[in-house]
Amino acid sequence: MNIGILGLGLIGGSLGLDLRSHGHHVLGVSRRESTCTLAHAKGCVDEASVDMKLLSAAEVVFICTPLGLIIPTFAQLIAHLPENTVVTDVGSVKTPIVKELSSYRHNFLGGHPMAGKTDSGIEAATLHLFANKPYVLTPLADTPTAATSLVDKIVRELGAIIYYCSPEDHDRAVSWISHLPVMVSAALIAACMNEPDANVLQLAQKFASSGFRDTSRVGGGNAELGVMMARYNRSCLLHSLQQYRHNLDELIHLIELEDWTAIEQQLQSNHLARLQFTD
Amino acid sequence: MNIGILGLGLIGGSLGLDLRSHGHHVLGVSRRESTCTLAHAKGCVDEASVDMKLLSAAEVVFICTPLGLIIPTFAQLIAHLPENTVVTDVGSVKTPIVKELSSYRHNFLGGHPMAGKTDSGIEAATLHLFANKPYVLTPLADTPTAATSLVDKIVRELGAIIYYCSPEDHDRAVSWISHLPVMVSAALIAACMNEPDANVLQLAQKFASSGFRDTSRVGGGNAELGVMMARYNRSCLLHSLQQYRHNLDELIHLIELEDWTAIEQQLQSNHLARLQFTD
Repeated sequence: MNIGILGLGLIGGSLGLDLRSHGHHVLGVSRRESTCTLAHAKGCVDEASVDMKLLSAAEVVFICTPLGLIIPTFAQLIAHLPENTVVTDVGSVKTPIVKELSSYRHNFLGGHPMAGKTDSGIEAATLHLFANKPYVLTPLADTPTAATSLVDKIVRELGAIIYYCSPEDHDRAVSWISHLPVMVSAALIAACMNEPDANVLQLAQKFASSGFRDTSRVGGGNAELGVMMARYNRSCLLHSLQQYRHNLDELIHLIELEDWTAIEQQLQSNHLARLQFTD
Repeated sequence: MNIGILGLGLIGGSLGLDLRSHGHHVLGVSRRESTCTLAHAKGCVDEASVDMKLLSAAEVVFICTPLGLIIPTFAQLIAHLPENTVVTDVGSVKTPIVKELSSYRHNFLGGHPMAGKTDSGIEAATLHLFANKPYVLTPLADTPTAATSLVDKIVRELGAIIYYCSPEDHDRAVSWISHLPVMVSAALIAACMNEPDANVLQLAQKFASSGFRDTSRVGGGNAELGVMMARYNRSCLLHSLQQYRHNLDELIHLIELEDWTAIEQQLQSNHLARLQFTD
């Protein structure tokens, strides 16, 4: 099958590697000539171009640009596509994207592969990135069954675990486990930096080990990505943050009261609850 | 040198392994006969007993019991020790312990090796646990120099990086990078569990990956240890929590205002700040 990929970063490049290994003919488009050259050299694509026209020969197109570029790029993209081409995206927030893109095009289907690495860009692209990872599909009631089946079939070839849900349920779920942790972790780093005594701050920096490193990791990550999550999933994230603030206040209150029994119960129940969150 | 270890868990057992490898004669005491047998079989001690009398032959004794048992055990311990025996502990909070134990004994010196593993107990004891890790010593102005020098010399043999500071500065520093992260992380798990829609909660549990796993790790850890940290370092922790709550409120406010530029600046400054916290 001819499969188009718009955006050749970690996700687009890895997708290309996997799809080619299954015998598909991959057409890749990037804004940069140098990325096209690299994608070709790495075997991520059969053909690459900076011109979206290349994608007109594809039966299905995966939009793999950064989140903030999906909607702006879409209008340009569909000008080049026949009416029956299926389009899907890999954005980490679904409601605003699905709402906008579905209004433009019947044959659109939202998707979100929950796979990643610390490194980004085509250089980091790798085979089997999606294997055994969740891949969420969010078709609407009026999405053509043929479009959903086609994307489902390709995603299955990646070895991903497919989940179906509404764009809204997806965004609420990722708000808890992906977007809230970024803000929780960001506030931790900011708080530590507010220590007014330079000597104590320096000791804290020297003493920091795996506990601090793990808890602060996502809050010290890619700033642009953090902003995009907050921007596109703002209402879910605000809801999660208000709930979080409530739970934090409860813990603070218990420490003020010196209610160690209640704190131990909370921590014990956390320990068990965390086991239900799988990787 | 004859060195005593009271409490044969991960820290006490690993200490024994290292000290014996440097030719010291290690006397170990545990509350349980079975732990004594295991410590001996693993080569953590030369002699082991459930009777504290064994430690009377030691020149220096390391108290390696859980944090909550250091003060209660100390009175029993010193009844068996000659006046000139140096005593140190490995507790993760220093102010209340140093205050209490120094009042009983001139030759006492607080310490805190910042080394650990996920596993605990004598079974997890290992050589070189302290190598290249911070080991904080908190002598007071009137602590005998000879006592400090003796502990310093032994700790250097472990390959640890020694830091000197006051018990108060130690506790403020670890409040930021060790105790605050536990509460921040605990509130995250608690907040997620408050999702009222069972379907969304289940999706969140399925979608959770490394971001959630890392941010929630210390909040889903050992409940007893979490309570001990909060209990012994209560005032520093409450101060850190109030600062944290302020920074969290700022982030929430910026998201409400949709001030994406300010959020991006905050996240970028976090990214740089985090690089200053070393492991």
